[in-house]
Amino acid sequence: MKKLINKPENYVDEVLQGMAAAHPETYAIGGATGRMLHRPQPVAQKVGVVSGGGFGHIPVFGGYIGDGLLDACAIGDVFASPDMNPMLESIQFASTGKGVLCIVGNYGGDRMNFDMACEMAAMEDITAVKVVVADDVAAAPPEESEKRRGVAGFVYVTKIAGAAAAAGYDLIQTQNVAQKAADNIRSIGVALTSCTVPQAGKPTFDIADDEIEIGMGIHGEPGVGRSKLTSVDTIADQMIDRLLTDKPVNSGDRVAILVNGLGATPVEELYLMMRRAKARLADLGAELAHIRVGNYATSMEMAGASITLMHLDDELECLLNAGADCPFWRN
Amino acid sequence: MKKLINKPENYVDEVLQGMAAAHPETYAIGGATGRMLHRPQPVAQKVGVVSGGGFGHIPVFGGYIGDGLLDACAIGDVFASPDMNPMLESIQFASTGKGVLCIVGNYGGDRMNFDMACEMAAMEDITAVKVVVADDVAAAPPEESEKRRGVAGFVYVTKIAGAAAAAGYDLIQTQNVAQKAADNIRSIGVALTSCTVPQAGKPTFDIADDEIEIGMGIHGEPGVGRSKLTSVDTIADQMIDRLLTDKPVNSGDRVAILVNGLGATPVEELYLMMRRAKARLADLGAELAHIRVGNYATSMEMAGASITLMHLDDELECLLNAGADCPFWRN
Repeated sequence: MKKLINKPENYVDEVLQGMAAAHPETYAIGGATGRMLHRPQPVAQKVGVVSGGGFGHIPVFGGYIGDGLLDACAIGDVFASPDMNPMLESIQFASTGKGVLCIVGNYGGDRMNFDMACEMAAMEDITAVKVVVADDVAAAPPEESEKRRGVAGFVYVTKIAGAAAAAGYDLIQTQNVAQKAADNIRSIGVALTSCTVPQAGKPTFDIADDEIEIGMGIHGEPGVGRSKLTSVDTIADQMIDRLLTDKPVNSGDRVAILVNGLGATPVEELYLMMRRAKARLADLGAELAHIRVGNYATSMEMAGASITLMHLDDELECLLNAGADCPFWRN
Repeated sequence: MKKLINKPENYVDEVLQGMAAAHPETYAIGGATGRMLHRPQPVAQKVGVVSGGGFGHIPVFGGYIGDGLLDACAIGDVFASPDMNPMLESIQFASTGKGVLCIVGNYGGDRMNFDMACEMAAMEDITAVKVVVADDVAAAPPEESEKRRGVAGFVYVTKIAGAAAAAGYDLIQTQNVAQKAADNIRSIGVALTSCTVPQAGKPTFDIADDEIEIGMGIHGEPGVGRSKLTSVDTIADQMIDRLLTDKPVNSGDRVAILVNGLGATPVEELYLMMRRAKARLADLGAELAHIRVGNYATSMEMAGASITLMHLDDELECLLNAGADCPFWRN
């Protein structure tokens, strides 16, 4: 395990301390166990927007705390759901009387614990509701889309929900537009190498030097199969084909695209993937109305990339372009 | 070689195409050989600011084209200086009658070719001058600081010079404040793994699974020696100690700090390094007036990190915080 870390058991808390040290205007550590990351001050008179999930995916989840984004976030151990308590603390922090939207990746522990947290919040007369992100087309076929994992699509849902809340949407409106975003997002990833969970000390999975796995999840969950490493154009084509099969892109469609690095892949290679993806979508007559390239949803030092598409309407495009400010997203 | 690329011989040009495809409002490809990256339109009535250097360090160099930053940049092959022509083309593009500042990393080929380009520009009545970035304290002792390599300090010099030009500084004033920035910057890096130049096809150097090299250059140049991988706190201390020995930080000093990833190191680990660096500098009574954490100057898929400090005065701090906009730096 070749990592720049201290003791593995302190990894999560020390990274949070580093984030708060680097960006004290954005991140503060709170909660009874220090696993609630939040803005320095809650924002009055708006719907609260929170999230939570396993650690090791920075900026997902807590990195997206900021203006027009999240108010607070529950932090789990590496690749493990937070328990209910920091989720409830996040809801309490973000609650200023207008209700709280919880953005939840489609993982069993995250969903169950957020359900409990929302019930506990209700006992305190805080209305908290969920939207579930399940964008990974490789995780299950369309007819079982409720089984799909949440991956980089979280970033778009967070941006949309945060912008809606900042614009004065009420709780139901915020939930509805976040759900609309989620329904319009599709992602697929490709892994070249594994990452290592610090407390495990060895790679999560083995993969040969000439192999890739298309559709692998951000925790190393199986994808749609191993294949030999080919050219980035070929790999991008395979990824785009799967996305288009799941939700076609037609001439005149306006689409947002995120080519996301998993942590160890150089941005140069992400631009190669974007080059091909844009050409493919342009051939279909689509307009790429919003483009991002970089490390937006990671798996520590996993090498690989994902492509996320979000079909836009005027409302989604407006909210996507609305002002937002955190160290990982600014516009 | 496990990379998401097409043919190695097309790597540089295809990455540039991807950058221009992703960010057409920021980057355009020009020049006789397509190796001049530039803003879509020159900005009239200001000092031009350009750079150039070997490829494989994105966002360094061309990624920093944008408002309040560079106007144009010459692009070399991977880890190889561009030749004189795209440098001259960059100067010509950025020239709107007020002269052009060339920000040059302290590498022999880059310096020599920019010297020639400046001479050629003079024949066209364009005044072009240089500032050389030589911030790597591991590359040579203080008494031979002219032998030091330019590394992540380039980012600060570019930000300062770009802001000065945008603020209406004349050529000599822009050069002077860029030189003042360069004089106040110190960097040191640590490498955990090598990267692979696509056309070489194999790692630039070997390093054992339990070894690091402090002071290694961004092309794999030797540092101050190999050692066993220890804790990030210990490594950060060694790096900070070398920076402080070279240029002390005293109580009350205002300092900018950049903890930079070399490409394959997760941002979580960069935050651990920042955590320790900030604690060390706070112990000295310094104020960290500007903090950045992320991949700002890379070596493709090299794992490792660098720490850059810039001592600030009012002018440098003002220019550092002035508005700037490119995909890799916005404020």
